[in-house]
Amino acid sequence: MKKNNLSSKQPIGIFDSGVGGLTVLRAIEKIMPNEDIVYFGDTARVPYGNKTASTIKKFSIENVLFLLEQNVKMVVVACNTSSALVLNHLKGIFNIPILGVVEAGAREALKVTAGKIGVIGTESTIRSKSYQKAISLENKKIKVIAKSCPLFVPLVEEGFLDGEITRLIVRMYLQNLKKNRIDTIILGCTHYPLLKKVIADFLSGVKLIDSAEAAAKESKNALKRSGLENKARRAGNKKFFVSDEAKKFLKLAKLFLKRPISKPRMIDV
Amino acid sequence: MKKNNLSSKQPIGIFDSGVGGLTVLRAIEKIMPNEDIVYFGDTARVPYGNKTASTIKKFSIENVLFLLEQNVKMVVVACNTSSALVLNHLKGIFNIPILGVVEAGAREALKVTAGKIGVIGTESTIRSKSYQKAISLENKKIKVIAKSCPLFVPLVEEGFLDGEITRLIVRMYLQNLKKNRIDTIILGCTHYPLLKKVIADFLSGVKLIDSAEAAAKESKNALKRSGLENKARRAGNKKFFVSDEAKKFLKLAKLFLKRPISKPRMIDV
Repeated sequence: MKKNNLSSKQPIGIFDSGVGGLTVLRAIEKIMPNEDIVYFGDTARVPYGNKTASTIKKFSIENVLFLLEQNVKMVVVACNTSSALVLNHLKGIFNIPILGVVEAGAREALKVTAGKIGVIGTESTIRSKSYQKAISLENKKIKVIAKSCPLFVPLVEEGFLDGEITRLIVRMYLQNLKKNRIDTIILGCTHYPLLKKVIADFLSGVKLIDSAEAAAKESKNALKRSGLENKARRAGNKKFFVSDEAKKFLKLAKLFLKRPISKPRMIDV
Repeated sequence: MKKNNLSSKQPIGIFDSGVGGLTVLRAIEKIMPNEDIVYFGDTARVPYGNKTASTIKKFSIENVLFLLEQNVKMVVVACNTSSALVLNHLKGIFNIPILGVVEAGAREALKVTAGKIGVIGTESTIRSKSYQKAISLENKKIKVIAKSCPLFVPLVEEGFLDGEITRLIVRMYLQNLKKNRIDTIILGCTHYPLLKKVIADFLSGVKLIDSAEAAAKESKNALKRSGLENKARRAGNKKFFVSDEAKKFLKLAKLFLKRPISKPRMIDV
């Protein structure tokens, strides 16, 4: 294998199935404000959460290839579904550091749990049992209860972050986790942190783990370890790419980032 | 243009972004039980409803090309979004009869309305104003009120065809149509007929138009006119293809068709 001459000046690459990965971008720019970032949202083929491993594998490989063309020094797989299903596969193929949100979220939960963790995510993420495996690899005694919540993503994308309908849907999906007295819950999908308030109200006393924040911390550590931290004294440059038109992405970006972004460029997948 | 030697023995081709087009297949097999049908559901790239015209055009062309390889005599675009955005474009490209659900639904509504029609569909269908245009082309005096209902598709796919949450969401989306006293409503998305009961309860007295049934009737007429009706005295053969794994499709197919189907073959898009 040829040694890769990566430089600290190269950008961090992030990909997601759509706009949700902006929660990861937000967490990264918060703790590494001077890093340049290239973000790719696969908005033409979103969502990944109800598709199968072979399809998600194909899409994810294409996404990493695109980020490599953008000369990134590291790839953060912001999509939980993609992290859950194909991260190890991507690590095996590509000669560059690749980091996912699942292991980061699992490790963060293990730091705070008293023994019973709830995991929520898309159908494919939950079916893959990736969070469960990542947790039991570190500590077999922890009990994990998982639940897929397919209506959460469309709810967030409709902007229904609160209100009667959202509260009823949260109750419907999470009542079993509550009955089972979980003490910690992993928000295993990029969209779910936007429902934090309603989830926290329903599961009062339960610790909420945001996989995006956990992944940002691990990215920082990984860059530090390999001497790839950008030490430039200026705010990092952010570039956005999407595979479907930019308009809807721009609208949702405001919801996720709480600030406007530069117009994304559309590429063909 | 080379004359196409189509034969009545060839199958009808149907494509949809996913499983929803099975409502069209169901309507066709009900009134033309002896026709062979090839169905393609683009489950790897579903949904189309929140994507843009250029992306949907690209996907739809690929879908028609695939059906042509299957030797179909006619293509029915079961996807409302695709019908709304790119039907004329497809008709211009391909040398085969192509029929969509939008014009069929609009014509059916015009037959029964007293003057005020409601149209509901995905974001892209509503934004395209296709139903509105199709209606005003025939009768400028008809008033049309349109509303996109992005949560209906995930609700149906979760199997929530009734219950408190579904009733609240139906009320939220349709209350303005009710206030405006529409007399007819077009269910402008393949999934919506599965919510017929709750919609009819909320809009009591309003006539419901199912675009799938309307498209089936028009397909039958078109085949008759061109002498392409299959007159074989046996039940037609049905073949199913998908672009993502068959399992979820099979599960949802039962919901839409109310009968099991033969296992779909997975193809690469």
